[in-house]
Amino acid sequence: MMLKTHHCGQLTKAHVGETVILNGWVQVRRDFGGILFIDLRDRSGIIQTVFNPEFSGEALAIADRARNEYVLAVKGKVVERDAETVNPNIPTGEIEVQVTEIEIMNAAKTPPFFIEDGVEVDEAVRLKYRYLDLRRPEMQRTLMLRSKASNVFRNFLDSQGFIDVETPILTKSTPEGARDYLVPSRVHPGEFFALPQSPQIFKQLLMVSGLERYYQIARCFRDEDLRADRQPEFTQVDIETSFLSQDQLLDLLEELVVKLMQETANVEIPRPFQRITYADAMAKYGSDKPDLRFGLELEDVSDIVSTSGVQVFANVVKGGGQVKALNAKGCGTWSRKEIDDLLPFAARYGAKGLAWIQVKDGEFKGPIVKFFNEAEIVALTERLGAEEGDLLLFSADKKKVVADVLGNLRLKIGRQLGLIDDSKFKYAWVVDFPLLGYDEEAKRYVAEHHPFTRPNEDDIHFFDTDPGQIRAQAYDLVLNGYEVGGGSMRIYQRDVQEKMFAALGFSKEEAVEKFGFLLEAFEYGTPPHGGFAFGFDRLVMLITGRTNLRETIAFPKTASATDLLTDAPGTVDEKQLEQLSIRLALKQPAAKA
Amino acid sequence: MMLKTHHCGQLTKAHVGETVILNGWVQVRRDFGGILFIDLRDRSGIIQTVFNPEFSGEALAIADRARNEYVLAVKGKVVERDAETVNPNIPTGEIEVQVTEIEIMNAAKTPPFFIEDGVEVDEAVRLKYRYLDLRRPEMQRTLMLRSKASNVFRNFLDSQGFIDVETPILTKSTPEGARDYLVPSRVHPGEFFALPQSPQIFKQLLMVSGLERYYQIARCFRDEDLRADRQPEFTQVDIETSFLSQDQLLDLLEELVVKLMQETANVEIPRPFQRITYADAMAKYGSDKPDLRFGLELEDVSDIVSTSGVQVFANVVKGGGQVKALNAKGCGTWSRKEIDDLLPFAARYGAKGLAWIQVKDGEFKGPIVKFFNEAEIVALTERLGAEEGDLLLFSADKKKVVADVLGNLRLKIGRQLGLIDDSKFKYAWVVDFPLLGYDEEAKRYVAEHHPFTRPNEDDIHFFDTDPGQIRAQAYDLVLNGYEVGGGSMRIYQRDVQEKMFAALGFSKEEAVEKFGFLLEAFEYGTPPHGGFAFGFDRLVMLITGRTNLRETIAFPKTASATDLLTDAPGTVDEKQLEQLSIRLALKQPAAKA
Repeated sequence: MMLKTHHCGQLTKAHVGETVILNGWVQVRRDFGGILFIDLRDRSGIIQTVFNPEFSGEALAIADRARNEYVLAVKGKVVERDAETVNPNIPTGEIEVQVTEIEIMNAAKTPPFFIEDGVEVDEAVRLKYRYLDLRRPEMQRTLMLRSKASNVFRNFLDSQGFIDVETPILTKSTPEGARDYLVPSRVHPGEFFALPQSPQIFKQLLMVSGLERYYQIARCFRDEDLRADRQPEFTQVDIETSFLSQDQLLDLLEELVVKLMQETANVEIPRPFQRITYADAMAKYGSDKPDLRFGLELEDVSDIVSTSGVQVFANVVKGGGQVKALNAKGCGTWSRKEIDDLLPFAARYGAKGLAWIQVKDGEFKGPIVKFFNEAEIVALTERLGAEEGDLLLFSADKKKVVADVLGNLRLKIGRQLGLIDDSKFKYAWVVDFPLLGYDEEAKRYVAEHHPFTRPNEDDIHFFDTDPGQIRAQAYDLVLNGYEVGGGSMRIYQRDVQEKMFAALGFSKEEAVEKFGFLLEAFEYGTPPHGGFAFGFDRLVMLITGRTNLRETIAFPKTASATDLLTDAPGTVDEKQLEQLSIRLALKQPAAKA
Repeated sequence: MMLKTHHCGQLTKAHVGETVILNGWVQVRRDFGGILFIDLRDRSGIIQTVFNPEFSGEALAIADRARNEYVLAVKGKVVERDAETVNPNIPTGEIEVQVTEIEIMNAAKTPPFFIEDGVEVDEAVRLKYRYLDLRRPEMQRTLMLRSKASNVFRNFLDSQGFIDVETPILTKSTPEGARDYLVPSRVHPGEFFALPQSPQIFKQLLMVSGLERYYQIARCFRDEDLRADRQPEFTQVDIETSFLSQDQLLDLLEELVVKLMQETANVEIPRPFQRITYADAMAKYGSDKPDLRFGLELEDVSDIVSTSGVQVFANVVKGGGQVKALNAKGCGTWSRKEIDDLLPFAARYGAKGLAWIQVKDGEFKGPIVKFFNEAEIVALTERLGAEEGDLLLFSADKKKVVADVLGNLRLKIGRQLGLIDDSKFKYAWVVDFPLLGYDEEAKRYVAEHHPFTRPNEDDIHFFDTDPGQIRAQAYDLVLNGYEVGGGSMRIYQRDVQEKMFAALGFSKEEAVEKFGFLLEAFEYGTPPHGGFAFGFDRLVMLITGRTNLRETIAFPKTASATDLLTDAPGTVDEKQLEQLSIRLALKQPAAKA
């Protein structure tokens, strides 16, 4: 067996004159009057090999049997190409290999699609033949970058005294484990393990253990209805520290991100990252993960319009809602149709209508203008910085709906106006998330992050008066409009934890029932601690400029949680189920228990 | 909150005069006539802090409330201890910290056991309070070494162009998946994912993808009856390469192991590692994972004794069995009782008896000696190097039983005679494993490794004549009598694969049914490839000198696959099961389908 001495893509003019052995796949073959050219591909790139009766002898006839994706071993001399045959499109384009020996290591059937970037292939076909799809250079680059990113994370964290600890995959179903994957136990009939949605409990226990700095590139699982950007199993870079303040932790994470971006994307990210409060993010961008590569901020105009003649505005404000506006700079010339076309988009986010004003010929124009008086028009002009050629878009509804509608319109219009620089990586921290949200249905507060999130010290008094006001020591890292990570400082003091449980409406007994061993652990000397988790798949997606998580995962599942390659999940033997003490309970018409 | 400026264990005389803040746990407190000494512990070590009315002010009274395992923040000056109070047993024994400020960060209940090395605590208690157990220095050292080892593996493999690829945890049940953990799918009622016993299929597919060098520190799962040295989830350092010969791969792995031992154990392992064939290992040591730190080799004496008057020897040889002997050097003085005591041990490995000869006063002594003639005694003396004071132990049985009995006696006696140097790390390769074993029950050959293991080229002709003779290109790495890893070159040629399936008695249809998509993948240009997997838990166990895998895993399961900390597995809501379209099928007396 002739095994490679060099990689195809790494040969340069410096190798001219050397005899090399290459192993790789046939990318393409061309026959020019008895001279055969085979482009040979390995993971490093492509090189042209030449079979010519002058120097190839028997190798020519053997090479002639090779087809696309055959695996070859070739031996030959590296030579410079003639000036007119230089191919400037590939790094090895100035040279070629004159083959003297060849071995067909393996044959290949004709693949269902051609192995190259940018092929137009149905994704289902790509996933079924993932092993061929992964031969495409862009997929290999993505997997290599992912590996590199993992390496940068680890080396940085190792250098900072973090300890890589593996936490269990077979663990216990959580009290609110509706989305847990369950695993029946053979040894304990009727009992189940659960796959972790995150290593949260274990990483906090490791802090109780005095490990001080923990990390893990951890597989997590969530059995939920899948959207385009979710996978049933996903990877997070999971971090927990003791004896650090929130600021110290965020500083350390910034340093890590800067390093990551240098080493994977060759980009310098300036520090410190912008820090924006949740309240500001929602107010200005209608989102807790704002895309800060551009402005186009929302403005609250409730005060101005609440007394106007626009009845719907007045009513919304009176009912506790909000009216906000977005100044789409320079869109004042849009046709009525162009403006109306925004409505179905806005409706997706809950908009019942979309009021607008054009600034044209020095004045406000549009159906609602007549309901404003001069003072209101002046105030709006000032508040929104309205100028000739602008389009003002209004949303009036509950706070959440307004944020969703205008936040998404902002993104759409920003994209449309070319305000978004896709080469830019704009990181920011969103801080001061609310600790509690009010669940209208359950008529009680629920933890926005989780019940162990530490409240802001200054807000603890609100537990007794207005729990909804309490800010959490919780923070998200956002990048270009995506959340790429989140974390919080954790409660470590018993009295604070009790206040928290009380706010959530748990009795002591309920708290113990739900969080038993963790609460017990906390009684044995818990250090102040906090942590973070990066969404690794999404981060890799953004760094590589892909738009789909599946592109960043070697063997992903489809939106219906199926692996098209292995055809998992699948049926299993009755006998296997019997051993696990379970049986199927399929909902069939005639079935009765 | 006073946050640490230094780690407890890292303070030295060089810090004398500095004011430091430390955070840690109260290891122990002592009160000497109004002066309070608190040994403060963090993951770096322990330091003595002093509270004295002279310089501590109010801190003394606060410190007086602290008990074992309280979490403290202290601020104070590093001073040299008086000569007579220097503690040579701890690295910080020459200094102490005179505390001026203190903060009790958290209180602690009295822990169920004292936090120190070498405590005599029931393992069940340690596992239930694992977060306290992990505070013990030896556990922290083990976790840190494990993290370090993982780091060494990764950095070496990264430097050699290996790509870290995550393969699915939710995958498909394998055809012989009797030991698969199953995961019911909510989205696909009646169907199941399986947790992987290894990433074998995916790593081979990655080679088909042209990735050339893959690695992953991979979690694997096996639902089997647990022995002391098994865990339901375990970690392997999983490796696969293309276009390398077996020798090239083993060389690379040796380099990796040498580096690992340097960086984790500060030990130099000489290269090349000994390579011993499976046949030799079984012949000389009665084991395919021989402890090569000492000799005490087995000798086949079948030829000498088959004609002797010892009827059982003659019969065994006639029946296709074997008689082998072990020369326990210097044990010729053992009493009859000492020798007899070996029998129950040997019986555990299948021995029906244990014949022996003592060399005493210049002659052979023992019950069987009278059945040998002079020539036989001379031959035995020569074959076994028998000398005055030796004890010769014989086992006569089927080959496998003889190997088990004498292989284990060799270990026991080697240990007893002090032949085993526990400070030594003796690595070796066991190579040339048989490709196929004959399953007497099924009356057919079965793959010893797996059906994709490449046969030795020289033995392929045996497929037609005597498949049992075929050596595999399979290899194990052994260390001090443990298998710490194994691998093989894989079949990549269609005709060889067909021969293999035929030898296993599979029709083409059966092969497709069992290995469908993998066989299809192999048709699209599969490179020659092979791989390896280190048993990471066991390797860490051996490097740290522990004797139990549970000591190397942060949150292990017991021998009955239970997590005593979280109490997993556990029961789940009926509603959860309903969503998964399964129900319990417990075997209760009255239950009927």
